[in-house]
Amino acid sequence: MNKHSHRLMDTTTASRTNISVSPISREMWLCPYSHEYFEKCGEELNTEESSATYHMLSEISSIHQITIVGGSIPERRNGQMYNTCCVFGPDGKLKAKHSKLHLFDYYEASGDVSFRESDSFTAGDTPTIVHTDVGCIGIGICHDIRFPELGMLYRAKGADLIIYPAAFNMSTGMALWELETKARAIDNQMFVAVCSPSRDSAGSYTIWGHSMLVGPSGEVKAKAEHGEEIVFAEINYAENQLQRELFPLRRQRKEGIYKFLDTEQSKANFSP
Amino acid sequence: MNKHSHRLMDTTTASRTNISVSPISREMWLCPYSHEYFEKCGEELNTEESSATYHMLSEISSIHQITIVGGSIPERRNGQMYNTCCVFGPDGKLKAKHSKLHLFDYYEASGDVSFRESDSFTAGDTPTIVHTDVGCIGIGICHDIRFPELGMLYRAKGADLIIYPAAFNMSTGMALWELETKARAIDNQMFVAVCSPSRDSAGSYTIWGHSMLVGPSGEVKAKAEHGEEIVFAEINYAENQLQRELFPLRRQRKEGIYKFLDTEQSKANFSP
Repeated sequence: MNKHSHRLMDTTTASRTNISVSPISREMWLCPYSHEYFEKCGEELNTEESSATYHMLSEISSIHQITIVGGSIPERRNGQMYNTCCVFGPDGKLKAKHSKLHLFDYYEASGDVSFRESDSFTAGDTPTIVHTDVGCIGIGICHDIRFPELGMLYRAKGADLIIYPAAFNMSTGMALWELETKARAIDNQMFVAVCSPSRDSAGSYTIWGHSMLVGPSGEVKAKAEHGEEIVFAEINYAENQLQRELFPLRRQRKEGIYKFLDTEQSKANFSP
Repeated sequence: MNKHSHRLMDTTTASRTNISVSPISREMWLCPYSHEYFEKCGEELNTEESSATYHMLSEISSIHQITIVGGSIPERRNGQMYNTCCVFGPDGKLKAKHSKLHLFDYYEASGDVSFRESDSFTAGDTPTIVHTDVGCIGIGICHDIRFPELGMLYRAKGADLIIYPAAFNMSTGMALWELETKARAIDNQMFVAVCSPSRDSAGSYTIWGHSMLVGPSGEVKAKAEHGEEIVFAEINYAENQLQRELFPLRRQRKEGIYKFLDTEQSKANFSP
């Protein structure tokens, strides 16, 4: 394993007790993905004292000396709720928090709203890049993956890997889960990981599952089925570099025709 | 067939003689995709007199009263060569020309150039949207599909459909052909068609084939194999609208974080 090669553990099995060994956990792993649970299960993600989740993730990352991208949970902050992912370093310290930027509001064909995440949550307003011992990681949550712009922003900021904790349903999962993951990987010529809860058909929101890691030319490196499963995969960032040398897409862009702007450069959650 | 439903014929079989019935023909259908032929086969695409291809496409579109997106051929213009696609209307008149914006320069891992389209061609500098009897069509050629920004620009300009005549090779074809087509479709929630020459393993550049039409949620509507084949498919633009209502991605974008700019609005090839 060279210095650019990192081991990624990715799991759909994470229960409250065994999340401890998982550097990436899924979207909303404290509770079912359903409005009635969000407020009830929310925590203030400020200190070990204020949050059992904070405490656990901090302790475990420190004990195992690993980086943990701690999926997402409902966060209570300033009287509002956010869908938030915490990243802890091997010293047990919080390195960054990412609050979901693009809330999943889905509209029925009739114009009726069928699911509106914004009824429960406030959207975050800053992209998140974390410089970790295992590379520079851009964080997105679930619906954030549908916006090519966010991936492009992370690429422009030097991310090696984008991780999206997510919980697509059976319909969006079938159509879009693997496709969006691969699209963000090939657009940006970088590794992309998506981590989902396993499927529980008894809930009101049946989840697609299939956590996966995709390489910089869109190839599936590791993939779970829909049940509980732990996925291990190794990442070699030299593969990003190789793709970018073979096909220098960034250099080939036509800024005389289109231009992509980072409009909030100064506000981004950059960890040191 | 309602007024938003259009029939698309898409072919990989097009030889110089039977291209006549094909509204979309492939990239570089006058000659093999190889430097030594480009200059030799180039034409001045200005009038029926100056170009046998112009004459043929004009005549056929007029006889059959159809819109033809005439693939691409080497165009000789102002002492330079362009990789250019012509679009003719049912009256036989040229509606637009699109010259490939992003030339395919591919670099070997060693840093040596293995194929540089820019050795033969000059890149175009304007995106092309054509208002036709069968919808508003954005045109890209081959490597143009790898740039999400161009698709986003066409979506912003109101395109119903993007058509990319293209000729991926066996390596990029296997990895990226279907994936890029679907990615542009789901990013922009619109129909995307790619049209390739059929495979000819005898040439110096073996082509992937697999012309296809993909719908606005990434679903394959019609797909050729790698051999000579004519593909017929029907397009209902109401499907674009439905996807955009279910998942209003454009409205959900975060312009406070990122912004996409059309930097050359005034110069674009917009047909009336």
